[in-house]
Formats: sequence, C-alpha cells, structure tokens
Amino acid sequence: MTTFALLLFPGLTQLDLTGPYEVFCRCPGAKVHLVWKSMEPVTSEHGMRLLPTTTFGELPRADVLCVPGGFGVNALLTDDETLAYVRQLAGGARYITSVCTGALVLGAAGLLRGRRATTHWTAMNYLPAFGATPTAGRTVTDGPVITGGGVTAGIDFALELAAALHGRAVAETIQLSIEYNPAPPFNAGHPDVAPPAITAAIRQHAPARQAERAAQVRLAVARLG
Amino acid sequence: MTTFALLLFPGLTQLDLTGPYEVFCRCPGAKVHLVWKSMEPVTSEHGMRLLPTTTFGELPRADVLCVPGGFGVNALLTDDETLAYVRQLAGGARYITSVCTGALVLGAAGLLRGRRATTHWTAMNYLPAFGATPTAGRTVTDGPVITGGGVTAGIDFALELAAALHGRAVAETIQLSIEYNPAPPFNAGHPDVAPPAITAAIRQHAPARQAERAAQVRLAVARLG
Repeated sequence: MTTFALLLFPGLTQLDLTGPYEVFCRCPGAKVHLVWKSMEPVTSEHGMRLLPTTTFGELPRADVLCVPGGFGVNALLTDDETLAYVRQLAGGARYITSVCTGALVLGAAGLLRGRRATTHWTAMNYLPAFGATPTAGRTVTDGPVITGGGVTAGIDFALELAAALHGRAVAETIQLSIEYNPAPPFNAGHPDVAPPAITAAIRQHAPARQAERAAQVRLAVARLG
Repeated sequence: MTTFALLLFPGLTQLDLTGPYEVFCRCPGAKVHLVWKSMEPVTSEHGMRLLPTTTFGELPRADVLCVPGGFGVNALLTDDETLAYVRQLAGGARYITSVCTGALVLGAAGLLRGRRATTHWTAMNYLPAFGATPTAGRTVTDGPVITGGGVTAGIDFALELAAALHGRAVAETIQLSIEYNPAPPFNAGHPDVAPPAITAAIRQHAPARQAERAAQVRLAVARLG
C-alpha cells in the first residue's frame, strides 16, 4: 500500500490538487488522503468547497507528501502548525512533493535547502530565499524532493511519480485512462512561448496578493534563520 | 456576466469537472455553479467529497451547461429528474457541453441527435445509439453542442470555449495562468499512440461497471423512443 497525503487548505488552486489526485487514486494499492487541520469544508481559491478526509492529528505519516499551490499558500508560509506538520510528514516520506506554489510551503518548512526546484513561473524568484536553485522544467527531481511547475504541471509530475513508484506500464495505463493526450488550442502555456503582452498582464495581476506573497516569503525566511 | 452550470453528481470523475472549472472561473464576469439535486456533499468516483453551490430548483438557466463524466454517469442515464433538468438548461443555454462520458448524459437527454460528438475513447461506441456521429477530436463542436474527449480533454475544451466567449487573448491569458504547457512523460494518452497491451487492459477493466453502462445505455435509448 502507498499512502499519499495531499495537503488541503483554504485558498488552494483546486486543479493543483485534482491533477495529482486523479493519478494517485489510480495507482495500485493507493490510499489517498486530503489532510487539513479539521474536518470542516475547505474553500478553494475560486470558491469550490471540499471536505478533508483526515486531520493532522490523525495522519502521522505518509509515503508521499504533496503540497498544492494557490494564493492560500501566502497564509501557510507563516503558519507554524502547518509547517510543523509538513516537516513531520516529510521526515517519514519517501517522496516530498509540490505542485505550483506549493513549493513555497516546502521552502518555508526548510525542505528546499540545497535542492533544485521549480514552481509556478510567477513565483520562481522566491525560491533562492529558501536556499533552493530555481530550475527550468515541468517537473524537477532532486533526491526525494519532486516539484512541479504551475497548476497543470501536476498531471505530468504525478505521472512521473507513478512511474517511479510502480513502473512505466502503470503510468501509461493511468495516462490512457485519463486520456492525457493534450492538445492545447493555443501555444501560450509558458512565458517562453506566450505573447509577451499576456505574460506582462499576468505579472501585474492581483498586485495586493503578490505584495502579500513577497512579504510572507520575507517573514518565512526570517523565521527559518 | 456569463453563468456556467457544471453538473455535480455522485461518482463523477473529479478532474472532468475541475479542468473546466479552473478555466471557467478565470473568464471575465464568470459565475460558476456546481449544481445538483440537493446541497449535501457529493462523493466523486474516487471518494473526494465536494459541496454543490446550488440546486436544480434554484438555478433555472445558465449560459453554459457542462456535464462531466465518470462511472456515476451510468445512474444518470435513466434518472428522469436529472435528464429533465439537463434538457431545461440546454433549452436556455448558449453552449451545451460535456467532458468525457458526460456526453452520454447529453445523449440520454436527447441532445445529441444529428450531432457530431466525442467522449472518452472507451465510450465512443455508445454515441450512435443516441443519434450522434462519433467524431475523432480532442474537442468536437457542432452548433451549440461542444463535447470533449476523456477526462483531461476538459482543459483543452474549456480553453476553446473561453476563446469562443471572450476571444483568443483571454484564453491565452488563462492558459498561461494555469501554466498549461503540457509535457507528458510518456506518449500513451490515446489508443492511437498507446502500447496495444495497455489499451487492451483498460478495455477489460471494471467489467461489471462496463456491463452496467451498456445496459443503462440500452434503457436510455428505449426511453428516448
């Protein structure tokens, strides 16, 4: 049996969680938990409400820790209870993973020191403060730490993890069952290929939350010492 | 304002819903509903519990109807209350859409007659019974009816719909914000490219639910007359 712990938290980006969720659930012998402080519904960034399956107190360890991202990450960066729990799971896990800005939570927990890592393209600049080396790649693996890029990268990351855990045929079976044969109608999924005006507009999006993120990263880094 | 109604139902594949959800929520002026018979939590195919945002009685119309898939579709194919509601929304909608085996629900509601359509690759054989022409393509558009292929096709479909509603720049902005620059680690996402042994294994997966689906399709077609 492989135990997966996906961190559920207010303000997460739902797709960061659901991409890996659908892959993990299809792994042989998988037990997939959505873990948060309480069993109350958790509201995602855009309002979807999900129910945790367990709590920090009830799930002391997991084989795979996975932290999704979203603007809700900002609050977690200085949330001692959550960071302590993330460190606890990381201590017993075979894989310590994130999708999107979930990497910042791993960083704030001190888990990215000396590691190559990736995150959502708008947040790559925060990685060095946590001692990580920002690294291009849809998925970046450094020892037990696997970080995925923004949002949809969670699907690619999870298929790689499925292959690492169970071999290529299992990962291919999952890929075919979720018909993951992507055909984006446009070629704008990364700043390397998107029209520059579109990249610039997103960089200026939600300035209050961006400023909050920068401030929270500074606080988190100061606490790490 | 654009009102999106995503049908939430027991046994849905969560990613079928969340892919479009994340795209729809980022459309300008979007109001995205998760609609089901009651406000009680709904359990997905693999156990994730989600809360509806509204009910059939509270949401009489929407600009976009979107029906996701999953094995829970089987029960819907002969569920008069749900099929009547799907028809009601379709009557007032600008776009009548599905992801994955959600197409079978559109079919059972009589909405695919004379239309080209797609669905999850394992279910393409059911489309003719509903009067539809199975059509290859990640997304198939026929008038107001837009059907997406299996599971992850919902992301591609939703970006196409975002462009139809708001223009290419909006769709590209959403694509970049969810970093949809896919890089599957394997090339097995469709029977056209997957190892034949893997395709064969999936065709034989869950025979009881496959038999139930075939029986439900027969019943649904008989009811349509």
